[in-house]
Amino acid sequence: MANANSIYIAVIGAGGVGQCFLSQLRDLAVRRPSPKLNLCYIATSRKALYNDDYSPLNLGQAIETLRKSAKSSTGLAELVAYLTKAPGKAIVVDNTSSQDVAEAYPMLLDAGISVVTPNKKAFSGSYKLWQDIFMAANASGAKVYHESSVGAGLPVISTLKDLVETGDQVTKIEGVFSGTMSFLFNSFAPVGGGGGKWSDEVKKAKALGYTEPDPRDDLNGLDVARKLTILARLIGLPVESPTSFPVESLIPQELESCATGDEFLEKLPAFDERMDEKKNVGGGKVIRLVGSIDVASKSVKVGLEIFDPSHPIAALKGSDNIISFYTKRYGDKPLIVQGAGAGGDVTAMGVTADLIKVIAQIT
Amino acid sequence: MANANSIYIAVIGAGGVGQCFLSQLRDLAVRRPSPKLNLCYIATSRKALYNDDYSPLNLGQAIETLRKSAKSSTGLAELVAYLTKAPGKAIVVDNTSSQDVAEAYPMLLDAGISVVTPNKKAFSGSYKLWQDIFMAANASGAKVYHESSVGAGLPVISTLKDLVETGDQVTKIEGVFSGTMSFLFNSFAPVGGGGGKWSDEVKKAKALGYTEPDPRDDLNGLDVARKLTILARLIGLPVESPTSFPVESLIPQELESCATGDEFLEKLPAFDERMDEKKNVGGGKVIRLVGSIDVASKSVKVGLEIFDPSHPIAALKGSDNIISFYTKRYGDKPLIVQGAGAGGDVTAMGVTADLIKVIAQIT
Repeated sequence: MANANSIYIAVIGAGGVGQCFLSQLRDLAVRRPSPKLNLCYIATSRKALYNDDYSPLNLGQAIETLRKSAKSSTGLAELVAYLTKAPGKAIVVDNTSSQDVAEAYPMLLDAGISVVTPNKKAFSGSYKLWQDIFMAANASGAKVYHESSVGAGLPVISTLKDLVETGDQVTKIEGVFSGTMSFLFNSFAPVGGGGGKWSDEVKKAKALGYTEPDPRDDLNGLDVARKLTILARLIGLPVESPTSFPVESLIPQELESCATGDEFLEKLPAFDERMDEKKNVGGGKVIRLVGSIDVASKSVKVGLEIFDPSHPIAALKGSDNIISFYTKRYGDKPLIVQGAGAGGDVTAMGVTADLIKVIAQIT
Repeated sequence: MANANSIYIAVIGAGGVGQCFLSQLRDLAVRRPSPKLNLCYIATSRKALYNDDYSPLNLGQAIETLRKSAKSSTGLAELVAYLTKAPGKAIVVDNTSSQDVAEAYPMLLDAGISVVTPNKKAFSGSYKLWQDIFMAANASGAKVYHESSVGAGLPVISTLKDLVETGDQVTKIEGVFSGTMSFLFNSFAPVGGGGGKWSDEVKKAKALGYTEPDPRDDLNGLDVARKLTILARLIGLPVESPTSFPVESLIPQELESCATGDEFLEKLPAFDERMDEKKNVGGGKVIRLVGSIDVASKSVKVGLEIFDPSHPIAALKGSDNIISFYTKRYGDKPLIVQGAGAGGDVTAMGVTADLIKVIAQIT
């Protein structure tokens, strides 16, 4: 059943994005019969499902069968050994947010196995890991694509790569990089005035599933800092880590030590006045939490900034992201990409699009 | 000097985009020494420059040398014969807007020669030519990329292809697809009221070089109709031609017969009142010339539409383009791409980015 003209795909992670990806992969395999796309391996952190003879798993039932599987998850070195012996080119799709899996990318790429992932950890961790990943890919010719690590399926990484690779000079990148932060500020400080209390908006966002289980994991700004780290490195700034530049946390210092997210939410209303002071900037202007990279000054930062109501960042709606690329060629009016920057289906779309691009290059 | 590991690039067209492209290609060849990028042929409609032994032309001096060249332009069949014998993979970069060159794409692709181009003609002409092009590419494995045929270097075609290829369902595309029209309406009917007389704005746009030599070539809507034809076909609507759907021309019927653009501009002020009537829609709303594709009703059209001042299309500045993709996955808030949609450098950027993608796939 194995075939040298087939692509062997190993998927790690079977959560929200993983499930959407498998559904897209199943449809893709039907629409594009050649080369044949074989799901040969799927694993979570605890369990794995694969056949020793590389015969393909059923794409429609893989997750259900995995849940019932008695096989423990293999180590990542074992996965490399398994895929190296596959009778065709292999691609690992990492749909986790695992640091451990991220740190295995150099080993995978060294072995000629391409990597496609929405996992931010590998590209926003230590600068050494970043260098190891791209050196391994350059040496072996294996590909590593990660569109969905910033702005989910929005064409952010691909656009920035096109700008850089064609020789444009990026001067500034500015944007709203978090769906959670977008939703919070669009509700808390809408154009035209009004908006609820800060603590109420945070509770509402949590109730709607727009925040992490502990909202402090959004409010600390680290998610945005990770995305900026990735973009800054793509334009050649050797950012050491997402904590190596100024990040404005929206967690009051007094609440950093709360034991749980619930305790945090309970105590947050006492700090609403402080956020109201920040919000009242006058002149119809609004505050937004933005990330920005200024290339000339090598400045990367995450923080609250003030915008005219007519500015595209102020005019954002719902939980949309917006990313503005200022470059030499585009002059004072940036190239802008805008839309949903989170969600299982649109994140998986970025992964599937990357997979298609990798397949086109390795076959 | 020829080398099987080299890519042989033939460039047709040495106008504004062609010159910017050659400059980008020169820089690219320096930054990426492997595979070696050889410019082996350059031609205008009258002259050609190439070496019979495929030795590379000097990228920095090619256009100047071409101007002095005594060689007449070869026919396209001769170009195919020349490139078929090249000692490595060949790519034709068509930087013209020529219908003749466009019609040669099937012949080039049939012969295994890839095509990269900003030329709209091939993709917005007859549906048969469209089919012939993609059938030839599928059969031979040669690639055909045309990002800059819509919105110049903005990621429009690539984004739409990603949406379609990953299985999203595009429901609507709407946007301002012409830098000229964007400039005209942003000046004539700005948000907040005011704006000049229509005929004055047209004259100003022409003086600034934003229109074709005869402004009627912009005002007839055909340029926008061509771009919509391309996008509609990419989502599977078999649009027969850019004149097979409703296009609202902004040329008063009485002036269609003017012998020259100058005569047209002279007589245009008599129709300012008519445009003022269209402009005065009340309620702070503004008119814009938009192109739209509604997939459910298979409706494609170009015409004036009315927008709230807070709508992204109303908020557009300068001569920027904006393209909104409404899809099943993105729901009611579209994926938006915005920025300069015309200009030599940004158009050439789309061509160069396509070239890089083609090279990655054929080497």
